[in-house]
Amino acid sequence: MRLGFLGPQGTFTHAALLASRHAEGAQAVPFATERETILAAESGAVDAALVPIENALEGGVNATLDTLALDAPQARIVGEELLAISHALIARPGVAEAAIEVVVSHPQALGQCRRFLADVLPGRRAVAATATAEAVRTVAAATEPWAAIGPAAAAALHGCVVLREGIEDEHGNVTRFIWVAGPGPPEAPFAAGAGGAWKTSLVFHGAGDTTPGWLVGCLGAFASRGINLVRIESRPLKRGLGHYQFLVDFEGRAQDPDVAGAIAALAAHCEQVRVLGSYPAAA
Amino acid sequence: MRLGFLGPQGTFTHAALLASRHAEGAQAVPFATERETILAAESGAVDAALVPIENALEGGVNATLDTLALDAPQARIVGEELLAISHALIARPGVAEAAIEVVVSHPQALGQCRRFLADVLPGRRAVAATATAEAVRTVAAATEPWAAIGPAAAAALHGCVVLREGIEDEHGNVTRFIWVAGPGPPEAPFAAGAGGAWKTSLVFHGAGDTTPGWLVGCLGAFASRGINLVRIESRPLKRGLGHYQFLVDFEGRAQDPDVAGAIAALAAHCEQVRVLGSYPAAA
Repeated sequence: MRLGFLGPQGTFTHAALLASRHAEGAQAVPFATERETILAAESGAVDAALVPIENALEGGVNATLDTLALDAPQARIVGEELLAISHALIARPGVAEAAIEVVVSHPQALGQCRRFLADVLPGRRAVAATATAEAVRTVAAATEPWAAIGPAAAAALHGCVVLREGIEDEHGNVTRFIWVAGPGPPEAPFAAGAGGAWKTSLVFHGAGDTTPGWLVGCLGAFASRGINLVRIESRPLKRGLGHYQFLVDFEGRAQDPDVAGAIAALAAHCEQVRVLGSYPAAA
Repeated sequence: MRLGFLGPQGTFTHAALLASRHAEGAQAVPFATERETILAAESGAVDAALVPIENALEGGVNATLDTLALDAPQARIVGEELLAISHALIARPGVAEAAIEVVVSHPQALGQCRRFLADVLPGRRAVAATATAEAVRTVAAATEPWAAIGPAAAAALHGCVVLREGIEDEHGNVTRFIWVAGPGPPEAPFAAGAGGAWKTSLVFHGAGDTTPGWLVGCLGAFASRGINLVRIESRPLKRGLGHYQFLVDFEGRAQDPDVAGAIAALAAHCEQVRVLGSYPAAA
């Protein structure tokens, strides 16, 4: 199998792929953005692809949510993975912590290490990178004493060393990733051996979204059937302020009779309902 | 009045402040992050402060939502502003468009001009900045032929020129900003002369959030009273995946009897409900 992931090499998504039960014997193919990764899976350029969708501290990953909801109508979610997220302070060999002048990372990672930076590296200039793995590459190529915040696994990839591990302010951070596939049948390897609970994700938006009680009517389709909504995310419909689409995750499988009934009842309130997929829930 | 804003000089927030009816005679004070801006208003270091909360394409501004909900218990929302967002391509005088090698901007702005970049500047390296105004400053200081994507107003501030205006892929983009104040009384200048509609914002989270139907029960407090919910945003409660808080905006004022009744009914479902403020709705 060819499995795409949000690259470059050494990202947390790469680490989640390598830790997954689908990695064995598979070829891992990096893509530059969440959007390109999802579109590669949708088109069949790879058999499936892994992208982050939600972090326990930072919330939803908008590029993933918007690509799924707006730009990849054939894409399906076929699985999910959870990965504990821990940041390391990374520099070229020989750069001492006290000498560091600049800290490079993705703005989310800089935010997650704000207290560490204030306490240990006060006053150092923060420089934004498009990804934590990219930050490590930048630091590896710099001639000045710069440091990156990123996955410890990325240090060795770029000839750097880890100065400190676990520098995030809040420990216990977790990211949820989803496996996306195209309209074909490669669900099988993802569904196989799944003895536990299932989850379904769908996206909806409605003509009545400026009417009092519209959203309650929509969510009532699940509540009245005792179906547990585990997540709801609103995203702009990109038709101007005030119009949103909703991405929901709930327990159960689209073919379960009560779930199918809820989806039909929801559709009566909506302009569009699209099931993104049913998949085995990660433990 | 001293009015804080998300800086540096030349940001869209700065432009929204200058365009507002509160700007006249006020001293504008920049802060580095959404969080610092809100905390300065909460502490009274400035009388009120302006921060972005929502963009029509990119959605909620997480740093603003999370600071309000988690880190600034005394802060209140006292007003809102809307500003049309348009991006310009900006470079040092004498740099021709064809010579541009690198394009610097905030990742959101790079994303909003993706098609323009692919069509007009294909293959140029994209470099992330922490803010669009910061991108313009970087380009002004560079010796290579770099360009920034940012507010046209920021070009002159840094001795740069506008090569193209309106380069965003989707026109009609709008950002909503909120005025935040501390617990004191400087509501008056914001409420004065407001003849139109009011809006209220609040944040809630609940003990029963893993029970089917819990969210429907919460939102039903508004629906059953005919109160129109205009926005709902879920954010992590930062207690691990699966627990969220909800920020909602609805029509009406907290002291209206039906709104007060809805808030009391909501509180019966929740661990915490906090009214962030009632304020005149922007036209």
